[in-house]
Formats: sequence, C-alpha cells, structure tokens
Amino acid sequence: MTAVAENGTAVLLEALGRVVPADRLVVDSGVLASLSHDEAEWAPAGHAAVALRARSEAEVQAAVRVCAALRVPVVTRGAGTGLSGGANAVDGCLVLDLSRMDQVREIDVDNLLCVVQPGVINATLKAAVAEHGLWYPPDPASAPWSTIGGNVATNAGGLCCLKYGVTRDYVLGMRAVVGGSAGYGTAVSLGRRTNKGVAGYDLAGLMVGSEGTLGVVTEVTLRLRPALLGTPRTIVGAFGSLVDAGQAVAVVTRRGLTPSALELLDRTCLQAVEDWKHLGLEADAAALLLARVDTPGDAGDAEARALVESFEAAGALWAAQSTDDAEAEALFEARRLAYPALERLSPVLTEDVCVPRSKVPHMLAEVEAIAARHGVTIATIAHAGDGNLHPLLLTPVGDDTARVAAQAAFEELLDAAIALGGTVTGEHGVGLLKMAGMLRELDPASVQMQLAVKRALDPLNLFNPGKVLPL
Amino acid sequence: MTAVAENGTAVLLEALGRVVPADRLVVDSGVLASLSHDEAEWAPAGHAAVALRARSEAEVQAAVRVCAALRVPVVTRGAGTGLSGGANAVDGCLVLDLSRMDQVREIDVDNLLCVVQPGVINATLKAAVAEHGLWYPPDPASAPWSTIGGNVATNAGGLCCLKYGVTRDYVLGMRAVVGGSAGYGTAVSLGRRTNKGVAGYDLAGLMVGSEGTLGVVTEVTLRLRPALLGTPRTIVGAFGSLVDAGQAVAVVTRRGLTPSALELLDRTCLQAVEDWKHLGLEADAAALLLARVDTPGDAGDAEARALVESFEAAGALWAAQSTDDAEAEALFEARRLAYPALERLSPVLTEDVCVPRSKVPHMLAEVEAIAARHGVTIATIAHAGDGNLHPLLLTPVGDDTARVAAQAAFEELLDAAIALGGTVTGEHGVGLLKMAGMLRELDPASVQMQLAVKRALDPLNLFNPGKVLPL
Repeated sequence: MTAVAENGTAVLLEALGRVVPADRLVVDSGVLASLSHDEAEWAPAGHAAVALRARSEAEVQAAVRVCAALRVPVVTRGAGTGLSGGANAVDGCLVLDLSRMDQVREIDVDNLLCVVQPGVINATLKAAVAEHGLWYPPDPASAPWSTIGGNVATNAGGLCCLKYGVTRDYVLGMRAVVGGSAGYGTAVSLGRRTNKGVAGYDLAGLMVGSEGTLGVVTEVTLRLRPALLGTPRTIVGAFGSLVDAGQAVAVVTRRGLTPSALELLDRTCLQAVEDWKHLGLEADAAALLLARVDTPGDAGDAEARALVESFEAAGALWAAQSTDDAEAEALFEARRLAYPALERLSPVLTEDVCVPRSKVPHMLAEVEAIAARHGVTIATIAHAGDGNLHPLLLTPVGDDTARVAAQAAFEELLDAAIALGGTVTGEHGVGLLKMAGMLRELDPASVQMQLAVKRALDPLNLFNPGKVLPL
Repeated sequence: MTAVAENGTAVLLEALGRVVPADRLVVDSGVLASLSHDEAEWAPAGHAAVALRARSEAEVQAAVRVCAALRVPVVTRGAGTGLSGGANAVDGCLVLDLSRMDQVREIDVDNLLCVVQPGVINATLKAAVAEHGLWYPPDPASAPWSTIGGNVATNAGGLCCLKYGVTRDYVLGMRAVVGGSAGYGTAVSLGRRTNKGVAGYDLAGLMVGSEGTLGVVTEVTLRLRPALLGTPRTIVGAFGSLVDAGQAVAVVTRRGLTPSALELLDRTCLQAVEDWKHLGLEADAAALLLARVDTPGDAGDAEARALVESFEAAGALWAAQSTDDAEAEALFEARRLAYPALERLSPVLTEDVCVPRSKVPHMLAEVEAIAARHGVTIATIAHAGDGNLHPLLLTPVGDDTARVAAQAAFEELLDAAIALGGTVTGEHGVGLLKMAGMLRELDPASVQMQLAVKRALDPLNLFNPGKVLPL
C-alpha cells in the first residue's frame, strides 16, 4: 500500500470510528481480501480500504455520509455469491457488508407480504414464510447462501421464473440510503405496501437490478404467494443432441404449456454430478430436460402428459413422467449441483445469455460451434423454458492459453446471443464481466439515458463506481 | 388568444409544417379543445397551440425537435380516457395525438409477444392476439376505447390484475422519443424481447406509469400469455353492508385463494345500471361481490366452492356459484357498465385509492363516513381483491356547493387511504388530480429523487410539464 493510500485509510477509519461502533470495522488484510470479491472468475478486484459490517440503517447512513465527505467509494455486498463481479472492491473503497442486517422484520399473512433486512438469506426467508403457509418464489441456484439484498441488486431469477417471475416481480417497496439532491446518507422509502400503485415514477423498480450503483438498499418489502398445495409432477426427457432438446423447449412454448420449471442439463454436467454424488443419473444422453408441473388436479395431470408428448414430438430418445419421488428429487438435485460439481473440476467462467425462446436451439448450436472453434470445454445448464442459458466455460488451473481462449469464447457467446435477439445477461447482472457485452447489446441512446440517471442520483459516483455503466 | 400567443402559434405551425405533412396538423379550435383534455372531472386544461396527429415515429421525432427548439411543451395523448388529467393540455403546447399510430406490427406466437404502435386500442389488441390462441390480460374498464400507449403511460390495471398483474408486468420493451443528453428527438430502444434480462437499468419499467413526462412512447413490445381454456366460473355474494363485503375480501386473501377477479359493486351502482339497462339485477343488498375462477379442472371447482364458503364465513346474505352463463355475463356486464351508468346521472369525480387488502373493510367504512360527513353521494366500485377502490363522487350539474363538498371529500378519501398504509392511485395515475395527494403520501426524499430523474431525462421540462411532479 502506498503512503498516500495508507494515510487515506487512516483518515477514513478515524472518521468511521466516530460514527459506528468499532467492532463493525474490518481492517485485517486477509478478511478484507475475502470481502473484496464475489464468485466471478477473473473479474478484477481492487484493494478495499476498510469494510463495515453494518447492523442498522443508521450505521449505513453514517458511513455513507463519511464516504461522501471523503469521496470514498462505497461497494455494497451481501453473501458475495454474484457471478459478474458486481460486488468486487475498487481501490480505496469502503466495503459495506450487509450480511449481518439479517432480520425478517414482519410477515403479514393478511396481505401476503413481508418486510426484511437485506442480509436475510433467500432460503431462510423461504423457510420463515413457509411456516405461515406462504411462499417466496424467486429461487436462484444460490438460494441457500445468497441474500435478498443481493437478489434485489441483480434482479435474481432461478428455476421458477418461467411461471412465477423474477425478483423484480416480488419487490413492492424498499428503504434505501441514497445520495443526490436529497443529500448523501438520506434514507428514503420507495414503492408501497399495496398490491397495485402508480403514485410517481417506479423508483423501487429502478433500484432492482441496479447492482448497488444508485444507493444502498436497507430494507425490502416483498410480495408473497400462498404456498402451493401438493407435490409437483416431474417430467424428464432425454435427447440425442442439444439442439433436439432446444426444439422441445420451442414446442412446449408453442403449445402454451406453463411448467413451473423447464431445465436443461448437458452430458458434461450430468457426468460431473454423477462422478461427485453418485445419484445414479444416466449420463448417456447428450442432454436432459427436466420439467415440473405444479398446476393442481386433473388439469395438471393433463399438462404433464402434454409435456411428455411435446418432448416426444421434438425427437426425444425417451420421455416420461417420473413416478418415483426419490428419482425426481435426485434429478432436480443434479440440476442444483451442476455448478459446484463443475467447479470441483476447474475454474468456471459462467455465461448468462438469454434469447427469445424459439431461438434456444440456435443458441445451443452456437455454443457447440464456439466451443469447438476455441477448443474450450463448455458445459451447459439452462433455464431453457425462459431461453436463459448458462454455458459454463471450464478452464484448467494455471493454463493461460486456455484462459485466453475461454475469454474469447465468452465474448463470442455474448455476440451470438445478441445476434439472435437476446441479451448478455438474463439474471446474473452486468457487474464487470458483462459491461463490454452490454454496450454491444444496448442502443447507445439507452446507455446515455442510464448514465444521466446515474449522474442525477449519484453525482459523486460514490456507489459501486465502474459497475454496470462505464463511468 | 393574445397577440404573443398567436404569434407563437404561427411560428410553431410554420416550423411543424416544414417537417410533417400538413394533413397531420390540427388548428381548428373546436377540435383542439376536444383533444385538450381527458375524462377527469374538473381537472384544469390549458389551451393547446396545435395538435399533431402523428403517423410515424419519424414524425414524432421531427415534432419533438421543433418543440425543443421553440421550447413548446409536448402533451402526448391516446384516446383521452384518462381519469386524472394526465393528458390535459397546457397553455401553448403541442398536443401529440398518437391514436392514428395504431398498427399491430408483429405477433410472435413462438415467443409469446407482440410489437404494437401506441395507438392500438386495448380491445383491438386482445382480439388480434386471440386469433393466434394468445391473450393480453390487462383489462382496464376502458379497454374498448383506451390505447396501449395510454395504458403504458398510466400502468393501467383492471379486473384481472389480481391474478395476472398490471400493464407493467407485460411490457418487455419499447421505443420512445426522448430528450436529455441524447438530444431531444432521439429515438431509443429500451428493454428487450427476451423473457428475462438485466442488462442495465430498467428504463422500460421506469417509462411505464410516467404519464408522458419522460418522453413519447412510439412502440411497445408486450408479453402475451396462452389463451385460457374453458369458461371461468362466476361466484356471487350479496352482503348486508359494505364492511361485510370487505371482510369477505380479507377472508379470501387470508385463505390463499386466487380468483382471476374479485369485484365489488355497491347498491347505488347496481341500481344505476339496472335503471339504465334492465339486466334484471337485484339491487337489494348493500353490496355484491363478483368473483371469477379460471383455474382449470377439479382444482378450479374446489376453488369456487372455497370462495362461496369464504363469502358465507364473512356473513354474506347469500352466496353461490352461478350456474347460468347469461346471468354470470350480466353481472360482469353490470360491473363494466357501472361507471357510464353513473355518469348518465351526474358528473363523477373518480377515486382510485388502493389499500392493503386486509384494510378493505376499514376503507369502505371510511368511504361511508366521509360521504355522510360531506353530504356527498358516493357510489363504490372496487377491484376489491387488490384493495383498489373506486369511490365515485356524484355531483349534480351546476351545483357549486356540491362540487366543493365533493372535492373536499375527495382529498379526505386520499388521506384515509394513506392513513391505512395505502396509496392515492392504484391504476389511474397521478396526472393533475392526485398530485397533492401523492405529495402527502410519498417520502419527500422520494419526490426529490423523482424530480432528479425528470430533470436528468427532460432538462427542458418539455414533456407533459406540470403532470405527476410539481415542476
């Protein structure tokens, strides 16, 4: 650390020490380093000056005021499970760790909503509301670890988005500590508690997916649903090629079926999970499609049959409704374990493209072509029913040539998605890794508008600078 | 018109004449007057200088450039069915009438979406997509007349929001003509065509509900659903008091039931419809609740029975599932006709409060108390399942005392909704009539943020000035 940086850190630390309890502050370099990045491979991370493990909105306000006065960037984080580098530190910043603001403040069963602090873990919230017969649907694969604040920051999706929507669809309102004309450190209530409402611009919606660049979310009011009744049906189809599996997705959409999940796993994923967990998966097919149908009663039975028929119509090697709960559970467990199973083998560069659903077969063909062209192993998992693909680029540790090839393939995958009318990020966010791709995707005038909004609400460029937008 | 105003109009007209075909321009004072207001009672409307019946985005761009150069406000309108004054002219403005940009550009059955111009009428779109087995759910009562552009501008709701969401939930992307740093008259693409996506800030979402204050929407990409199969079940309950009907709504929510509509009509509404249309409605009860259940199969039958039981548990005089399609249709027809039936009797000042659903009985009690206190006749229709109430204040023509009383009651209803944790507008928008109430409802820091966004994206305050925000 340079003398100037050391001095800056001392000034920041002293100023923070005056406004928050000393035990909230982290300066140990090892701990700081662990709080300075998320799970995105090869996304650059700077050196944070200090971390603050805030316990209250008042502490966040106090810290933001200090940082504004000293022009110290504020990088907010939850569990650090992001995959785009959105939570990575920038040099000299304050890392604002909200994982200890983890209280479920209120569960309102009469109005199907809850109020939570941002550090509440997704799965913890699901369990808490389930005790009241309620359900919080968004289910990113990181649900056992990721926080609601992080889910809001990236507008996290998951398996059930196809039928039940993404985080955005569940955020009714929030409290946030913001900057701009209201003054840095101002705490503001945005949105509402009602089921509908159009009083003013939808700023709560604007905050969702803004990755901490417009302020710090300190509380979230979330819409809930009644818990689903009964056990969902699981339908499995095995396909001789990725493209055939993609065709099946197109057929399902075309027929107006609404499974609550429609997931794809390729052979590489299945094999990696089987080698690790020995769930008894067949890894012979090029790809499996897993569908869930939670429509109750006879209509759900009919929908399950229609899914089997759709898979068969698309040329499945075989397709069937699972009659064995343990088998069905193992299949969805395999889906959840695919990412960690591959991570055991090598560093994984994670794609998150989303294409119009009819283009899923085309995108899968592009994945195969790009993998072959660059000599990169790409395993694909996908929220196929949404057109949201996660090609996972595997790169042997320490092989720089392989890393460079993977990074080139990564950008080509983004271009392929854009060319098919898709987007570079379906649910992981822009962070650092998708910024170049986003700029290729979006209308430049839209980027100008986003920059104008950012400058209006954060004129000091204090909040998570350099993420999402090139500023 | 003053000499200065006349000269300004001449300059504007000449400048517009150079960039758009002459037949698009309206200067006839009678026609201009009819294009200068929406259907909000007593909302002030200014004198427009010129109206432009645009036929293309390029014409909108050209007109916005001219208006920016001359600092002439631009007030965009569709069918003019708004109820908050959001489309009312301001003095000297250009009224930009988009009702002739009415093409359905694309219906993509493979991806469940469509692309439409803003002047397409809601019901026309519904019919067009129905031919392809698809459904566009948002169903404001104005659906036979109101345009998609207007629906987007106000984030219109309707009967089916309860289960299927509001306009916001169906807007994937749009094109708009904007101002700001991109330059006034820039056409921009916002949002996406994919089912999910988080590339940058959600500007398409920000535009929804912004009532033409951030730019002019020239094209909208809308999510569609597969058409529903079968005939929905209709459940009717009659109640001895408004508050009992409100209790039934609370019971339905508490039990986790998800009807696709849950509407309330009070005796005044029923009587007005019956007097007009002679549908054979019973107008004895203080209030009727009408519910629809479209869940298919045996699960839907069970849900219908649970609704009947919920109504009975809340003290209904009687409750039953309708076994007569004609009767069921007449009941929903009565719901749709309630507003025009009351308008036949006298001018109607329309409320649009939304409260947490458990507070519906409390809000209905407030409506009765406020009506009594001010000596105002208030008929209530409500999207009760959403907590969205439309108390309709009836005022004899030419009775100024009654008008003043109604306006006082109007503001008290807003305060009552705010006190119950609700909002001053559920689906009609802020426009002019709800601005004072909105400022009482929202956190002042949130208003500051909204003003900052408005100034950033429309620094000339050109787009629909004086609406939504006090600027």
